[in-house]
Amino acid sequence: MCALKFTVFKEDTTSKARIGAFETTHGTVETPVFMPVGTRASVKTLTNQQLIDMDAQIILGNTYHLMLRPGMNIVQKAGGLHKFMQWERPILTDSGGFQVFSLNNLNKVTDEGVQFQSHIDGSRHFLGPNESMAIQKTLGSDIVMAFDECAPYPCERIDMEQALERTYRWGKICRDYTLQEHQHLFGIIQGGVFPKMRHQSARDLTSLNFDGYAIGGLSVGEPADLMNAMIDETEPFLPKDKPRYLMGVGTPKNIIDAVMRGIDMFDCVMPTRNARNGTAFTWSGKITIKAGRYADDFSPLDPDLDSYASKFSKAYVRHLLNVDEITGLTLVTLQNLSFYLDFMRQLRQAIDHGTVHKFYQRVCALYPD
Amino acid sequence: MCALKFTVFKEDTTSKARIGAFETTHGTVETPVFMPVGTRASVKTLTNQQLIDMDAQIILGNTYHLMLRPGMNIVQKAGGLHKFMQWERPILTDSGGFQVFSLNNLNKVTDEGVQFQSHIDGSRHFLGPNESMAIQKTLGSDIVMAFDECAPYPCERIDMEQALERTYRWGKICRDYTLQEHQHLFGIIQGGVFPKMRHQSARDLTSLNFDGYAIGGLSVGEPADLMNAMIDETEPFLPKDKPRYLMGVGTPKNIIDAVMRGIDMFDCVMPTRNARNGTAFTWSGKITIKAGRYADDFSPLDPDLDSYASKFSKAYVRHLLNVDEITGLTLVTLQNLSFYLDFMRQLRQAIDHGTVHKFYQRVCALYPD
Repeated sequence: MCALKFTVFKEDTTSKARIGAFETTHGTVETPVFMPVGTRASVKTLTNQQLIDMDAQIILGNTYHLMLRPGMNIVQKAGGLHKFMQWERPILTDSGGFQVFSLNNLNKVTDEGVQFQSHIDGSRHFLGPNESMAIQKTLGSDIVMAFDECAPYPCERIDMEQALERTYRWGKICRDYTLQEHQHLFGIIQGGVFPKMRHQSARDLTSLNFDGYAIGGLSVGEPADLMNAMIDETEPFLPKDKPRYLMGVGTPKNIIDAVMRGIDMFDCVMPTRNARNGTAFTWSGKITIKAGRYADDFSPLDPDLDSYASKFSKAYVRHLLNVDEITGLTLVTLQNLSFYLDFMRQLRQAIDHGTVHKFYQRVCALYPD
Repeated sequence: MCALKFTVFKEDTTSKARIGAFETTHGTVETPVFMPVGTRASVKTLTNQQLIDMDAQIILGNTYHLMLRPGMNIVQKAGGLHKFMQWERPILTDSGGFQVFSLNNLNKVTDEGVQFQSHIDGSRHFLGPNESMAIQKTLGSDIVMAFDECAPYPCERIDMEQALERTYRWGKICRDYTLQEHQHLFGIIQGGVFPKMRHQSARDLTSLNFDGYAIGGLSVGEPADLMNAMIDETEPFLPKDKPRYLMGVGTPKNIIDAVMRGIDMFDCVMPTRNARNGTAFTWSGKITIKAGRYADDFSPLDPDLDSYASKFSKAYVRHLLNVDEITGLTLVTLQNLSFYLDFMRQLRQAIDHGTVHKFYQRVCALYPD
């Protein structure tokens, strides 16, 4: 395993925002980057071709979901996740930790890991740092996430201390695990909304010298101000020459707030999940496209976005959703991910041109939350 | 309304198969042709781009479904169906007759047309020849179908006589209706499985001098032999210089059987509907892709088809269907329509090269029904 090559091209002078790029054997990723979520080896409703057409640089796969279905014996026989799903660009996989701690009521946590029951068929499984590494090694993702304990929000101090302790211990095990040559490992910093624990976890994890650092345990129900405060508490402890990843975030405003605090990478189901609920993200703001007022609105879904789906009329997309045509879900998903990727492109440009604050105001006017 | 320009390029010497092309203002259509069904202004699970990529020449829209949702006021404001759905190639619309006669138990048929209740909300509507023409004029389809009475199978002789009488009378009303300049009108021949009534209906309709002729009322439950026999009874009455369209057909074998009997055009929901049930049409035959034996079959979905979806492994497509990922439905739909279009391309080539019988044997070996 070689060190991840990450270059910061430019730092904003008025915020901690920065543009850069990291290199994987499956391609280069320009940061700040948004990673579409491909939970079960597909980004919901889309083909890989549609993701390439919108120039998605990297996608995310979920260890928890993939270990249950199709299962690692299938992915191993396929030669890894890239080959299985025929996606040739970079993939990041999560550790499964978030899901086993949040999806399962029937889990049993020990210092070795988590015993849990499948949400599909109740079958019993065990996931700990060694198991998570073994699975992600089989998946062959370019970025592997260390196995962590993601404590709930709110959380008692004493429980958070235990989670921190385990996250560090498990982080060491992951760090010592031999992955595939092309894989890179990120550590995950926990600590909830306790500033001192964020400091502690950041010190713990950075001492292990990962290829990048994620801030976990945020965007789990706490107010946005508190999330931003915790990023502010954590960021100074992170080395500037490694990418920083804020997991599971978020709205356009959440993202730009975090980028200005020094974060480089994001993933979130919001653009894909909200698409399936009929919410379109556009450069005119959020649109509830099924609303009756769009029935005869023949203006383009998003006149200010140059993407395939944006050209269709609101009335047409509304009709497709209204009659439950799958194509409608696909078009809104295309719109939303294209919007998110365009938003990140424009954000990178704004950092490059020194106009982040102006761009920030534009984004917040459209997406105040 | 100008006459439809239809050219027969070549006739097979050993069957009635022929290759040709007709021209519309939205493009040329090479025959024999299969028309993907886009019931409610989209071909289920696909974007227009995906249809263009597989080179679909023409698609079908359904008058009955479109009159209910989005309704003609919306399509009119959009400037027609092409503009509404942003499909720039030819469109054929059916007359709505088949649906009001088959979908509705609560219909009341008179000599003027059919009073029916919407299957969606029970609202009352009336569809007769004038209404069907008005709707299809608003839709602006390139090929308009005359409003007919599609009798059920089996059907009493006396009921069929009435259906024939009405189909002729309604055909005349449609023929006299002023459509848009670019539209072309096809008549529909009925007569069920009564040879003499097929002759009569064919004589009736051809006397009205339509731009093309459809054979309706087949593929409604009768055996394939009987369907073929009825094509044989009808075809000699049809002018050779107009396209012939067998509505709602069918399997690859049904189609090649009909082409060898002189038919030029086909539509069917089979490739799209069966895709959503997990059946793939391939050059290795029909595949029930969700079957357990494909769980670790990493061979391409269809090694003998050069299309986007065909390159994915059976195991991957099976996984997507197994976990209810919409992308799985999209990939199988892409496979099936690509297969049907490739089948028609190869069939046109076989007619051109005088190898129809050899191709027929290949198709029947793979698709015996």
